[in-house]
Amino acid sequence: MINQTKIEIRKPRAEIFEAFVDPEKIGNFWFSSSSSRWEEGQTITIRYEEYDAEGDIHILKVIDHEKIEYEWGREEGEPHLVTITLHEKDPETTIVEVTEDGFDDHDPELTEKLVDNKEGWVYALTCLKGYMEFGVNGLRAALVK
Amino acid sequence: MINQTKIEIRKPRAEIFEAFVDPEKIGNFWFSSSSSRWEEGQTITIRYEEYDAEGDIHILKVIDHEKIEYEWGREEGEPHLVTITLHEKDPETTIVEVTEDGFDDHDPELTEKLVDNKEGWVYALTCLKGYMEFGVNGLRAALVK
Repeated sequence: MINQTKIEIRKPRAEIFEAFVDPEKIGNFWFSSSSSRWEEGQTITIRYEEYDAEGDIHILKVIDHEKIEYEWGREEGEPHLVTITLHEKDPETTIVEVTEDGFDDHDPELTEKLVDNKEGWVYALTCLKGYMEFGVNGLRAALVK
Repeated sequence: MINQTKIEIRKPRAEIFEAFVDPEKIGNFWFSSSSSRWEEGQTITIRYEEYDAEGDIHILKVIDHEKIEYEWGREEGEPHLVTITLHEKDPETTIVEVTEDGFDDHDPELTEKLVDNKEGWVYALTCLKGYMEFGVNGLRAALVK
């Protein structure tokens, strides 16, 4: 199974693209920081200061303002492929689509992992909408596990 | 399985309680309207103007500022029980916990239903945080299915 989440954001896709790839911006809606700009072929360390956690992601593909593909979990032997696609609905409106692939259909905890993964993406994309449309950067890091 | 979602909101729980039960407020973060104030024993019609959809929920229990229990899906023969609990972390901060029960463990579409249900709750609670803390009411009704 693949998790897919889509949200409409009333901003041009070039601005939304920058929110993901610019390490100065990601802390406004998702991780607290990334180690450098997201560029094809780079390995980026992303941190969650609030949980004292970090991990590496591998940027596989970048099409400016359109698409980002990255892999995470490679070091743990469970690589997941994330694809972020920015669809232009009109010049001022973007549909942000995220798919995540790599779940093991035979994992006895598959359902829990899919639900947990869905939680993370819906949360990140709603926080992104709050940041992009309303300049609100205080929505993130409030889910309680 | 039960879906559970929790989020921290920096507002007193009395204010968050009102956002759910007051039909003037719910349209700022979740459904577009509810037919009357949520009170124990009432059947409430909730509407999503954007999707031209509506349904009834049955309010089973209300403890002011602390807990709301309601059932939906009764008419469709698949009743689900939703419990919204407002935990006071400190007088100015609330942990909002939502559980939803009633999923059929033998349903071949169980995983899809749990994932979809999780999407809805994470989205509603993040929109609630945006409304309560930042006065933003434009986050809702933007998920694309």
